[in-house]
Amino acid sequence: MRVLGVSGSLRQTSHNGQLLRAAASLLPPEARFTEYERLKAIPPFDEDDEPSPPAAVEDWRAAIAEADAILFATPEYNSSIPGQLKNAIDWASRPFKETVLRNKPAAVVGASTSMFGGVWSQAELRKALGAAGARVVDRELPVAGAQEAFDEHGRLLDHDLSLELESILAELLDEVRQRSEVALKG
Amino acid sequence: MRVLGVSGSLRQTSHNGQLLRAAASLLPPEARFTEYERLKAIPPFDEDDEPSPPAAVEDWRAAIAEADAILFATPEYNSSIPGQLKNAIDWASRPFKETVLRNKPAAVVGASTSMFGGVWSQAELRKALGAAGARVVDRELPVAGAQEAFDEHGRLLDHDLSLELESILAELLDEVRQRSEVALKG
Repeated sequence: MRVLGVSGSLRQTSHNGQLLRAAASLLPPEARFTEYERLKAIPPFDEDDEPSPPAAVEDWRAAIAEADAILFATPEYNSSIPGQLKNAIDWASRPFKETVLRNKPAAVVGASTSMFGGVWSQAELRKALGAAGARVVDRELPVAGAQEAFDEHGRLLDHDLSLELESILAELLDEVRQRSEVALKG
Repeated sequence: MRVLGVSGSLRQTSHNGQLLRAAASLLPPEARFTEYERLKAIPPFDEDDEPSPPAAVEDWRAAIAEADAILFATPEYNSSIPGQLKNAIDWASRPFKETVLRNKPAAVVGASTSMFGGVWSQAELRKALGAAGARVVDRELPVAGAQEAFDEHGRLLDHDLSLELESILAELLDEVRQRSEVALKG
């Protein structure tokens, strides 16, 4: 099973990048984790550009298509989704009839230096992914005070949070298994 | 009074561009309307780029700083704000202590080809603007079925919607007047 990790923060040493790697270390051996590292290259969605999508958009869509599941780790900007992450979802969701997000298992977690761990951003991202047709795990993982949340090996210091992350990942992978069973029957 | 119009849609002949121009024609003579046309040039927000913001970001921030009020007209993508518009808000909101959005009067309207006129996108945009410190008119103008909403002169065909738009603009300009009274007293 191929899990694609996507960080909503673009900076090099972001807490959400850390959170993705903490998640990767909790995945079972049958899952292969890759982090998508070219989110910044995706240009603004413009309907006029749809007939010939830029190469960065094709790359992003292909990465989603090849993944069995996507794990988003997102900060919160102005009480909502970081604009560039939402822009990437907007491109991936089009054209609606053939979007690579359709029925794609996805989960959303997030780290934030705030007290609330970015729950609004995570909720809005789940909503947008659902609107685009993805199968979204209906749970959240708000990692608050992100600057102090990880140990020197990049693991979550809070054991309960770590268990919760593991459980969200298990649900995400179950969704993949259910999908492949449906595909075998269909 | 200088009103800056910002369309959340980047395409050339967008319904939201039309809606901005319909709004401009309803403004009183003392208001001067300008449409911001360089939203697409704003690069993805990346905290690593903050120390030396790209020229397109400086241009956007200056346009906001020079305006007395901002009118946003936005479509709805995946039940939320178009990514690139949110990205522009993210840049404008930083650094938080000196954001050009602080106390800036703003209103949000929107046109959409859907039945609901993009109310979720408008609500989320108001929330994000409020989080960034703007003074947001707490009303919405959902122009549904946008492809049939305007006459050949670009006016809203629905007279009630047009009156509502005029009333939202009046509230926006009142906010500007109240701010300048506070400034005179202060």
